[in-house]
This record gives sequence, structure tokens and C-alpha cells, in this order.
Amino acid sequence: MGARAEQPVLYVYSTIDALLAGAYEGDLTVRQLATKGDFGLGTYNHLNGEMVLLGGTMYHVKADGTVAIADPDEHVPLAYVVPFQPSDTFVVEASAAAKPLTELETAIDARLANKNLFYAVKVSGAFVNVSTRAIAPQARPYRSLAEVSKEQVVFKRTEVAGSLVGLRSPSFSKGISVPGWHWHFISDGKDYGGHVLAGSLVRGVVKVAPVREFDVQLPASDDFAKADQTKDRSAELHQVESGRR
Amino acid sequence: MGARAEQPVLYVYSTIDALLAGAYEGDLTVRQLATKGDFGLGTYNHLNGEMVLLGGTMYHVKADGTVAIADPDEHVPLAYVVPFQPSDTFVVEASAAAKPLTELETAIDARLANKNLFYAVKVSGAFVNVSTRAIAPQARPYRSLAEVSKEQVVFKRTEVAGSLVGLRSPSFSKGISVPGWHWHFISDGKDYGGHVLAGSLVRGVVKVAPVREFDVQLPASDDFAKADQTKDRSAELHQVESGRR
Repeated sequence: MGARAEQPVLYVYSTIDALLAGAYEGDLTVRQLATKGDFGLGTYNHLNGEMVLLGGTMYHVKADGTVAIADPDEHVPLAYVVPFQPSDTFVVEASAAAKPLTELETAIDARLANKNLFYAVKVSGAFVNVSTRAIAPQARPYRSLAEVSKEQVVFKRTEVAGSLVGLRSPSFSKGISVPGWHWHFISDGKDYGGHVLAGSLVRGVVKVAPVREFDVQLPASDDFAKADQTKDRSAELHQVESGRR
Repeated sequence: MGARAEQPVLYVYSTIDALLAGAYEGDLTVRQLATKGDFGLGTYNHLNGEMVLLGGTMYHVKADGTVAIADPDEHVPLAYVVPFQPSDTFVVEASAAAKPLTELETAIDARLANKNLFYAVKVSGAFVNVSTRAIAPQARPYRSLAEVSKEQVVFKRTEVAGSLVGLRSPSFSKGISVPGWHWHFISDGKDYGGHVLAGSLVRGVVKVAPVREFDVQLPASDDFAKADQTKDRSAELHQVESGRR
């Protein structure tokens, strides 16, 4: 980037509350979504696996554990994508034991002067004891995400090199995004990934990109229109995100 | 508009939770805000009165009850602005008695197939028993909006011709906007207006513009960064919006 870059805008398609309510089909294609940035996360229509967007390539982690490049004609029901413009880079070197994800989050939080913004964060390095999950494609009538996620498939790696692709969302975005940290993972070999349930960092580089603007596109689908987004889904969200039953 | 218009985008500057927490200074000018649309509402820096944007003109209703055209160099701490593109127009003619605002809201709600969108709504006509309020400019250290609004100045008109300028926001936007209806008013004579506490419609034309996309700009100010936006401010918001003590 030669001149001062445009302020990055986080593009949000649909809302986390609509997904929790079972709105698993969107009318946005991967091709369209890819124009919004080079970094992000989400899922695919019918809740078919997990999306990881890193370095401009959109990966599709499926419920059989395989990783593919996403089909440009595939549709998405929920996604968060941004042009990745990090302003803070630092190295984490775990001293005695590897640093669990929660400690990594605390270490990053300590560097954030303003908790009322979004942050796109990439952590690339060596990890141990990583657990990810993906969900198999669903059929109508769709059950709630809290129900469906009980059937998630979990993939574990004792040692893996790769990248955490994360978004930290401010409290006021509850209903639209996941407040606090939300991590997906993709291995350097592009053969392992998914929504992160647990993991520890041995050593790595953390890049933090603050985001001051976000643009939310609400789907035109009946599913979205009819999703009950009036109730407080915090408890459901916590269950779904943490992967606990 | 000849060809099919671009989808209108609701521009949101800051968040309702930041305002409730006392973030009364933004770094956006009226001049900049006016590029985002011709219809909307908000307030001015230091919480100096109420903003009504109608037909591309930004009005400033002050705490002494006067109405002025907003100074382009004035700054705003919170605003919601959209290009007004109504898709549904209907006439309301109150039969026996004038229709209170709550009944008007119910009548409009009944026509909305999708409650998970934003709606910009203009109601132009003859009103009776209107109560509006404005708040006087505040000085640092800023108190919360719930505290400050106890000192609101209320203006009443027994009969007045004018327009309600309203925004209906979906539940999931809580924290960012006011869930449900939020009305400001400006008289045809441009000599009366403010944040609407009560009023009844005798007869008028309602224009409803659905909005499927919104773009939120988070202020760069320290006030915004430090505003506690982690707590549930629903009760404070209800008190502030309704004008009850």
C-alpha cells in the first residue's frame, strides 16, 4: 500500500442470532463475498462446514475433516470478512508450557486500548493440542444451532503449524456477531482446520488489525425474515461456541 | 429515479449504548453526515438539542424550543441517516378520535412482513396533543443520558401540521440503535419539533422505506473508547426514550 489506505470495513452478512435461530441459507455467493476482503470466517449454506478466509483464499473445512478451496458458486448464510490491515505485530514465545487459547486472548486483550472496536487477528505459528469442529450439512426443517451443534464432529491434532483466524467483537454487537473472541483455524498444509474449541500456542506471531467500521447486509430470504431474533440467545451462543453439550 | 436505484444503506454514527454512557462528542461534521442520505435523526455534540433530517435539510431543535438549520461545521455524537426510498405509501384517516402514536405504530407494524429489517418511516399530516423534548447542551464531566434526560425540556402543541421522522430498528441491533420505533418531529412551519414523547395523528400519509443494509462508523474519540458498553442498558433506554423520570 503506497498512500494511506482506506479505512478497512468489516463486511457482515446476516446475523449470529439468525444463524442461532436456524437461518442456514443465504443468497450471497462465495464469489461475491470474496470481493469484501481477504480475511475472515463464517459458514456455508445448509451449515455445511466452516469457512476460513486467509490471505485472500477461502477454505472450506467439511464435516469429514477435509479442507478444500471454496466453490465460488457456493452460497453462505453467515460471514464476517475484512481487508486485513494489521497495525500491531508481536511475537509470543511460551516459556515453560504452551499458552492456552484463553491466555493468548488475555495477552492480546491487554494490548487493546479500545475494547469498543472490532479486531481482526491472525496468529501464525506452532500449536499443540488443538481441537476444531465442523458441522455436517443440515436438511429442512432446520433445527436451532444449539441442537445441531450437539452433533458436531471434532478433529484433534497433537502438534500442528498453522494460523488462527480470529475476530474480536465489541459487546454492543451482540445479536449481530459473537461478543469477544471467535477463532477459526487453518493448518499450513491446508489439510486441517475448523471452528476452534481449544488449543495452545507454543510460539507464533500475532497480528492485530483494528476495525472502526462495519457494514451489515441483511439477507432477503424468508428464513431470515422469519428467524426469531427477539430473544436473548447468549446462553445458546456460549454453548455453541464452546462446543459443550 | 429512472433506473433501479442502488439499495439504500442506513449510515449509523456511533452507538446508542455509547450515548447512554455519556459519549456526547463525535468527530463527524453535519457536512459529512449530510452526504449519507436525506432522512434521519440524531443529536448534536454536547447533547445540544435534537436532529431531524427531512428532505435533505438538517434541522436543529434546541432546548429553548427554537428550530434552526444545522450549522454544517457542527459535530454530531450519534446519528442515523439514510437515502429515503419508500416502497409503501398509505393514508391514515382517524375515524372518531385521533390515533395515538402507539396505535399508529401498531398499524404500520401490521404491514411489515419482515420485522428483522430497519424501516425509515415518514408520517406527514395533521397532529394533535404533540409533546416533544430537547436536551440542553452538557458540560464535562458528562453524566449518563438517563441522568441528563431528567432535565429535558418539553414542548407541547395542541394542533400542529408536520412530519414524524422515524426509524424502526430490529431487535438484534440493540446496543447500536433503539429497538422498535424512534420518532423525531418537525412542523411544516419549521418552528417546532424534537424527540417525540407523545402525539396523535388526525390524518396523514405514511411512507415506509425498508432498509436491508446498515453501515456503522465507530468514533475515534476517547469518549467512545472508554464508554462502558458491556452492560444491558435496556431499562435506561426505555426511561430516556419515553421521557419518564
